Amino acid sequence: MQDKKSVAVIGSGAVGGYYGGRLAEAGHDVRFLLRRDYEAVSMSGFKITSPAGNFTLPHPSIFRSAEEIGTVDWVICSLKATSLNEGQKLLQPCVGPHTRILVLMNGLGLEDRFAAWFGGEKIFGGMAFTCINRGEPDTIHHLDYGRVTIGHYQDNPNELEEALSLWRGSKADVVTTSSLLKVRWEKLCWNIPFSGLCVAGGGITTDKVMADPDLSRAARVLMQEVIAAGNADLEAHHEKKRIDGPRIIDDMFNQTSTMASYRPSTMIDFVEGRAMEVEAIWGEPLKRAQALKADTPMLSLLTAILRSLNRGR
Amino acid sequence: MQDKKSVAVIGSGAVGGYYGGRLAEAGHDVRFLLRRDYEAVSMSGFKITSPAGNFTLPHPSIFRSAEEIGTVDWVICSLKATSLNEGQKLLQPCVGPHTRILVLMNGLGLEDRFAAWFGGEKIFGGMAFTCINRGEPDTIHHLDYGRVTIGHYQDNPNELEEALSLWRGSKADVVTTSSLLKVRWEKLCWNIPFSGLCVAGGGITTDKVMADPDLSRAARVLMQEVIAAGNADLEAHHEKKRIDGPRIIDDMFNQTSTMASYRPSTMIDFVEGRAMEVEAIWGEPLKRAQALKADTPMLSLLTAILRSLNRGR
Repeated sequence: MQDKKSVAVIGSGAVGGYYGGRLAEAGHDVRFLLRRDYEAVSMSGFKITSPAGNFTLPHPSIFRSAEEIGTVDWVICSLKATSLNEGQKLLQPCVGPHTRILVLMNGLGLEDRFAAWFGGEKIFGGMAFTCINRGEPDTIHHLDYGRVTIGHYQDNPNELEEALSLWRGSKADVVTTSSLLKVRWEKLCWNIPFSGLCVAGGGITTDKVMADPDLSRAARVLMQEVIAAGNADLEAHHEKKRIDGPRIIDDMFNQTSTMASYRPSTMIDFVEGRAMEVEAIWGEPLKRAQALKADTPMLSLLTAILRSLNRGR
Repeated sequence: MQDKKSVAVIGSGAVGGYYGGRLAEAGHDVRFLLRRDYEAVSMSGFKITSPAGNFTLPHPSIFRSAEEIGTVDWVICSLKATSLNEGQKLLQPCVGPHTRILVLMNGLGLEDRFAAWFGGEKIFGGMAFTCINRGEPDTIHHLDYGRVTIGHYQDNPNELEEALSLWRGSKADVVTTSSLLKVRWEKLCWNIPFSGLCVAGGGITTDKVMADPDLSRAARVLMQEVIAAGNADLEAHHEKKRIDGPRIIDDMFNQTSTMASYRPSTMIDFVEGRAMEVEAIWGEPLKRAQALKADTPMLSLLTAILRSLNRGR
């Protein structure tokens, strides 16, 4: 370990637990904020099953409040987007002048909020393309994939090098991107059609979407709508890069066809009656598409259905 | 009563029970085919609540098989479209050389099947624009509206006059149309968006669709897609009449806004776990739209979702 860092994980669900766990395993001083699961984890630690190697953290550093965690080098924020409004209050005690913040969450526009709260130079976005579920409170199942792509809010290459150095020596597969916005949209190219149809189709797994010719065709058209909206948004943000539509459609369908019966996190939220991250994943992209006059009829309908299903949760 | 007719009601659910009941009330010899509810109705008759006047048929003519009913002047077929394949066998014993058949069902293309089985000159289609629910097995609640529009499969005006004469003297509100296909599509202009969104939105009532700006907007776009597909289908069938889009959108939204919290029959099927009439109401219109190259992205997505929700029922 060349350079041990202090890291606060705010939002220690499956994603925060897994990636924070990998940093702890590599020797960093990782401090988990736990609320509901504090007791369970204090009893038995974190257990992580993973194709990259199972591991346990028998005695992770866990805290009930961000104040107890204090100022750190890095904050990994993996809150659920439905709790985004709590983000400023939860992170504030951990953020000092030199703290960097990795927003490891699903959805579009999240970093804008963190940048407004803490300053854009501090903010990174992370897109985990991975299948991770929570088992019992102290157990995390990393099922497949796992690559995290990290971008900087201001696309500053020196800052990207800082981000990479944190993960060097860990078993997490981390790469960087020179366009955070582009990769956010690329992640949505998967999430919008597949997570959305897994929910609207009745709480089904990804293999069911793939095997159903109607849903699979709808997924493809939805992805095309997302690509068009994303490219319009990149242009509006003066970003020169574009999503390569045919390539990403091929990649996403190929990857999904090897996933077997995966349950996307929003589908799990749906079938378990919890609030779904509808606004971050569907609402904000649709809002931008509409502002940019992109033609997204399927996205409009899917978002309307998901909002309706999310009502009262 | 000028001209008493014998009428077989095949499919004595809410719609068959109500309209057959109105003909019996008017003095016709109406014979109901009952299967599941035979015992209940033989004990206590039919009770019908209706804004047009409550009435009861204490001793309706009920039968357990079509053979017992025998040949009649009119067959009213109000089977659920999911039972369409049983139609030929169920109706056959009631159909003689002069029998006329009113297909009082939801969906597109149903009369084609009956015409193939019994000859197109015998076939009429009926579109009930009404809110009727089943209560207990012997009770039917007619809640609102109730107009039935009847067309002849070959659009023969003399046959339409025959159809009207059956209903004259009854309390049912019956009109005729010179274009069965056009009115079938007009009915779909309501059913496709409103029934579909009531299901896909999570089993909600029509007022929830109207009050939700996203769903209400989606309903309007869906309706526009149905109008375009319907007009293309009318043209392909050498029918000169067209659906008047702006008028029908206004009418449908105005009527729906006065319906309060109505539960469309497909939504009731959905929440009660029964098979939904997806192919007749969504699948066949989509198939025609696709064959005619009409642009119907929302209809495609909605149909894919409904088929997925209907799987295994």
